[in-house]
Amino acid sequence: MDHVTFVPTADQFSFTFGGAEPVRRIRPGTVLTLWTEDAYGGRITSADDVASTALGTEDLNPQTGPFWIEGAEPGDTLAVHLVDLTPARTWGASTLIPFFGGLTSIPVNPTLQEPLPERTWIYEYDSAAKTLAFDAKGSDFSVALPSNPMLGTVGVAPARREVRTSLVPDAFGGNMDTPEMTTGATCFLRVNVPGALFSLGDGHYRQGEGESCGTAVEGAMHVTAIVDLVKGGGPAWPRLETDTHLMCVGSGRPLEEAWRAGQVEMITWLGELYGLDRLDAYQLLTQISLAPIANVVDTNYSSVTKIDKRLLPAASAYGGIHTELRSAARSLGTVNY
Amino acid sequence: MDHVTFVPTADQFSFTFGGAEPVRRIRPGTVLTLWTEDAYGGRITSADDVASTALGTEDLNPQTGPFWIEGAEPGDTLAVHLVDLTPARTWGASTLIPFFGGLTSIPVNPTLQEPLPERTWIYEYDSAAKTLAFDAKGSDFSVALPSNPMLGTVGVAPARREVRTSLVPDAFGGNMDTPEMTTGATCFLRVNVPGALFSLGDGHYRQGEGESCGTAVEGAMHVTAIVDLVKGGGPAWPRLETDTHLMCVGSGRPLEEAWRAGQVEMITWLGELYGLDRLDAYQLLTQISLAPIANVVDTNYSSVTKIDKRLLPAASAYGGIHTELRSAARSLGTVNY
Amino acid sequence: MDHVTFVPTADQFSFTFGGAEPVRRIRPGTVLTLWTEDAYGGRITSADDVASTALGTEDLNPQTGPFWIEGAEPGDTLAVHLVDLTPARTWGASTLIPFFGGLTSIPVNPTLQEPLPERTWIYEYDSAAKTLAFDAKGSDFSVALPSNPMLGTVGVAPARREVRTSLVPDAFGGNMDTPEMTTGATCFLRVNVPGALFSLGDGHYRQGEGESCGTAVEGAMHVTAIVDLVKGGGPAWPRLETDTHLMCVGSGRPLEEAWRAGQVEMITWLGELYGLDRLDAYQLLTQISLAPIANVVDTNYSSVTKIDKRLLPAASAYGGIHTELRSAARSLGTVNY
Amino acid sequence: MDHVTFVPTADQFSFTFGGAEPVRRIRPGTVLTLWTEDAYGGRITSADDVASTALGTEDLNPQTGPFWIEGAEPGDTLAVHLVDLTPARTWGASTLIPFFGGLTSIPVNPTLQEPLPERTWIYEYDSAAKTLAFDAKGSDFSVALPSNPMLGTVGVAPARREVRTSLVPDAFGGNMDTPEMTTGATCFLRVNVPGALFSLGDGHYRQGEGESCGTAVEGAMHVTAIVDLVKGGGPAWPRLETDTHLMCVGSGRPLEEAWRAGQVEMITWLGELYGLDRLDAYQLLTQISLAPIANVVDTNYSSVTKIDKRLLPAASAYGGIHTELRSAARSLGTVNY
Repeated sequence: MDHVTFVPTADQFSFTFGGAEPVRRIRPGTVLTLWTEDAYGGRITSADDVASTALGTEDLNPQTGPFWIEGAEPGDTLAVHLVDLTPARTWGASTLIPFFGGLTSIPVNPTLQEPLPERTWIYEYDSAAKTLAFDAKGSDFSVALPSNPMLGTVGVAPARREVRTSLVPDAFGGNMDTPEMTTGATCFLRVNVPGALFSLGDGHYRQGEGESCGTAVEGAMHVTAIVDLVKGGGPAWPRLETDTHLMCVGSGRPLEEAWRAGQVEMITWLGELYGLDRLDAYQLLTQISLAPIANVVDTNYSSVTKIDKRLLPAASAYGGIHTELRSAARSLGTVNY
Repeated sequence: MDHVTFVPTADQFSFTFGGAEPVRRIRPGTVLTLWTEDAYGGRITSADDVASTALGTEDLNPQTGPFWIEGAEPGDTLAVHLVDLTPARTWGASTLIPFFGGLTSIPVNPTLQEPLPERTWIYEYDSAAKTLAFDAKGSDFSVALPSNPMLGTVGVAPARREVRTSLVPDAFGGNMDTPEMTTGATCFLRVNVPGALFSLGDGHYRQGEGESCGTAVEGAMHVTAIVDLVKGGGPAWPRLETDTHLMCVGSGRPLEEAWRAGQVEMITWLGELYGLDRLDAYQLLTQISLAPIANVVDTNYSSVTKIDKRLLPAASAYGGIHTELRSAARSLGTVNY
Repeated sequence: MDHVTFVPTADQFSFTFGGAEPVRRIRPGTVLTLWTEDAYGGRITSADDVASTALGTEDLNPQTGPFWIEGAEPGDTLAVHLVDLTPARTWGASTLIPFFGGLTSIPVNPTLQEPLPERTWIYEYDSAAKTLAFDAKGSDFSVALPSNPMLGTVGVAPARREVRTSLVPDAFGGNMDTPEMTTGATCFLRVNVPGALFSLGDGHYRQGEGESCGTAVEGAMHVTAIVDLVKGGGPAWPRLETDTHLMCVGSGRPLEEAWRAGQVEMITWLGELYGLDRLDAYQLLTQISLAPIANVVDTNYSSVTKIDKRLLPAASAYGGIHTELRSAARSLGTVNY
Repeated sequence: MDHVTFVPTADQFSFTFGGAEPVRRIRPGTVLTLWTEDAYGGRITSADDVASTALGTEDLNPQTGPFWIEGAEPGDTLAVHLVDLTPARTWGASTLIPFFGGLTSIPVNPTLQEPLPERTWIYEYDSAAKTLAFDAKGSDFSVALPSNPMLGTVGVAPARREVRTSLVPDAFGGNMDTPEMTTGATCFLRVNVPGALFSLGDGHYRQGEGESCGTAVEGAMHVTAIVDLVKGGGPAWPRLETDTHLMCVGSGRPLEEAWRAGQVEMITWLGELYGLDRLDAYQLLTQISLAPIANVVDTNYSSVTKIDKRLLPAASAYGGIHTELRSAARSLGTVNY
């Protein structure tokens, strides 16, 4: 396995999927050791920093990448296995951004109401206990929450010559903001352009499903990933595999359309794995689907369709690549920072 | 505790929330031993029965009830604790109904496409192994799925003088179709009319989140429940408590509106339990919410906002009534059929 | 023609479609001379009256009726021809109601934002000039707008045993809030219960498409209508005919579903009138449809699909009943109040 | 006035907003004489050509441009005045494309149903009578419809470094598909990048509101336009002015969000023109808004908020530039092809 380490300098981040020059060319099977900045671009550092003064509307959600994958052609399947996610700071931050989030009006769905007040919470990260300290600001309440490092954003260049901001989730992946994108998961993405132009970022030390207020416990992250390539077989929507689950992530608006996209993708996958016709797969999915919402805050919403593998006979997706990547990951030994 | 047994005769079912005469008057704290017919009204009994010939468009989803709760007044909180749900038949049925379900056009959202083919699956129920046998019809595939008995429909009479069909979920509960409505859960509903007029039905031997095709493994059910009353405190949307979780169920269309309703209800509940102001509760929920979809197939969609109690300090909702009802349920001993 | 005059007393209004006793039994062809209270129940009478103090959440949008139509059976078509709508007061009122309207969060789609400020506008009605005076309250701006009397609410009892508040538009008509429901229009509604149980109300002296803030220039109204019956042929969604246009009104959420319902209804109607198959009707409608939004503020949204008759060959809908009713209306002479 | 004529060769079309090199640099005030290909790229030429064989999924909706406007800076307002639109062929075409359109399931909102049958209609254009001949294919029905040439697509490069396909309408304009984009209209667009990078295309010889089946009577077009620049004042969403109306076009999903965007934009505009505060403007708009739907078929839906100028006192938008452009257009004399 090739090993590539890339820690971007301040001017090396990308802010789009598509449209940026690759930072490295790598071969399939390469182990990437990366660092990702937080979605604020590192500009929120204390509870006194609020979005309206600390952040602009540009240069949000910086991505590490893109990487050109040798041999990747449109229609292929990129497999990104997350080996390890380790918080790169001793604290994370979540902040209410005016007219952004799930429980406020937003520019594309405006009302005439005033914005919510701004407020920023700093969560101290206890790397020994692996907890994040929540301290309420309007009352006397504190609680330590277990950390659960994940990536909000994993994606490739879009189809149809498009360039999309890193704030958007869609068929190319992007800002899906699902807690399922965590250590041990393999993400399958359709390649849309030569080289795939893969990037990732938006580390969350913890996030609930839905990402209600729009920002998780955002923080810089050490990321170890293995990137591999399957010729052909590119899925219509991102798929995820873990040791225990199969998942498909649909994105769109309204939310039921994101759900439908993920459901039909899973019906297709069940057909591939078990030879089920579409009506049988629809029926089976009806009785076994889990359906955790990913986000209801981004430009598109994302919904996960999830199946517990234990309910079904063993099957090998994409030639068993997830199992191989898990094995390769273990061979890397303990990842320490 | 009063004990009331009610097994409806064919002409005693109700098909609405509101608008039906109570079948019994009971006191708060009463243990109900009930029988519920399946959502087909028992008219699907083999794989040869398809919806277009076996079912009409009326008399769907029969409910057992309504029950008049002595002393229940508008604004009060009805607490329904599900003690036991046991399948009352040796098989359940799921069927594709033309222009009904999550992955087809429907009358209120029509397209010009043809309906999907009709198909009915009978799941044999193994009461010893507690499994349901899925047999694919378009391919050679079988699997035994664990049963997970639940109720699709629990509700009270609506506000504003309305009468709604039992097919609809809304603020009054009704056809929420969430797998969370299972043994051990306490459901809190706002009382809208004197006596509350509570009923339940729509037993599912198993259902995935979303209830994709529109019908779970539908089956008649033996239901044991304790119905209690809290004066005042009626929630805006249904709440659920189990030994491990707190939940709120929003219903509406599009799906993100159902999610928002459930989220804001939970923010209100977190404020009640922990004294958090709304912005702190919004922040905390952002990091800890689970968000399993309930259904994307009924007239309104339903979305569950769910919190793992272990993440938070102990708190006592509605004076600890869930714990009391759990204790009372255990005192009833093993339920056998 | 029978002539029936009905001016409800304070306790004779109904607040639902379905669920109320008929106030009169009439024969098809009857001319009704009615009076309707405004949607506030007459409780907003000056700019000092605001919703939060003057209105409750119950007893909104009082309806005049219901009327039992002799011989009306489920599946029949009720034809309601609006002969004359004349403002019954010298002023109308529009008011911002907290958490109600198109550009604010609402209870079924909540955010955490504060409500908009309350404000009430009184429009003086000049019955000679037929204008309504708008006076801005936050700046020095006045303008006289032409009056355009219409009814927000026309409907029958719903199907499936339901009772719905008069605030809701749906397949049974109800609170569609379209400016197309005006003098000279014939509204066709499917009969769902014996006697149809028809009622109307919610007079608007003027309203824009969408009814943005949630309240038009609301006012009591003198209404003259002829109610007739066509056996069979009940449409899935309300249809309207004027001397110049054919229209179908779909209601639902999200708004595109209301639009789809109205479009498919019109495709069905074009098939009935011209023998077009569904694809040809779809194509023709694509090039000639008008699509004015009715309301984006009620529990369901409503969208009008509208066709200019002049674009198509002459055709006779429902046996030419609109033309007959127009003729009958003219025979009534000038309506004066 | 500068005059620039540009008739693109086959390899000169662009298929995106943003991301393409400008074809010409022009000064504000330039008269453009252009030719636009139809949205099919000219590949549908007879009723035997259907989408699945004649069209790919790439290279749809070719645009003429982009044009670099000298001096245009982010935040400025581009004013595009449509002087003349004349069909450039003797026929137009409309076609049912599988899984595309308003009354079918679509890839981002999939169902399991089969696609609609394919069918293509050729409309002969009578340039003397200015009519288009519709001939039904499934029945014996023909009608001549008046032509109403318009442009589906007018836009500039998006903000946030994005590149979007020409199939999408959004804040940058693009594929709004409204019949209001016709001769005599001035379209105001916010400039997002230096030079604005303006392009247009997608001529329709006629289109109904909503563009139900997804394709209007598509045809190549001779376009005469004057492009001008206002420093600053860039609107959040596209605005249109004609001699008789003011309009704002919101785009998004679900459709009510597109409507809200257009409504709030108009409230802002009314404030600029008449000094109304936002609540007074909201109230006034409630009573005078027209709300014709533009399209319910593109990746985003578009909704027009429209006001009849005659209802309001005279006001001068953007320094009266529409009136000036109308005058300049008349000075060009009759446009003939």
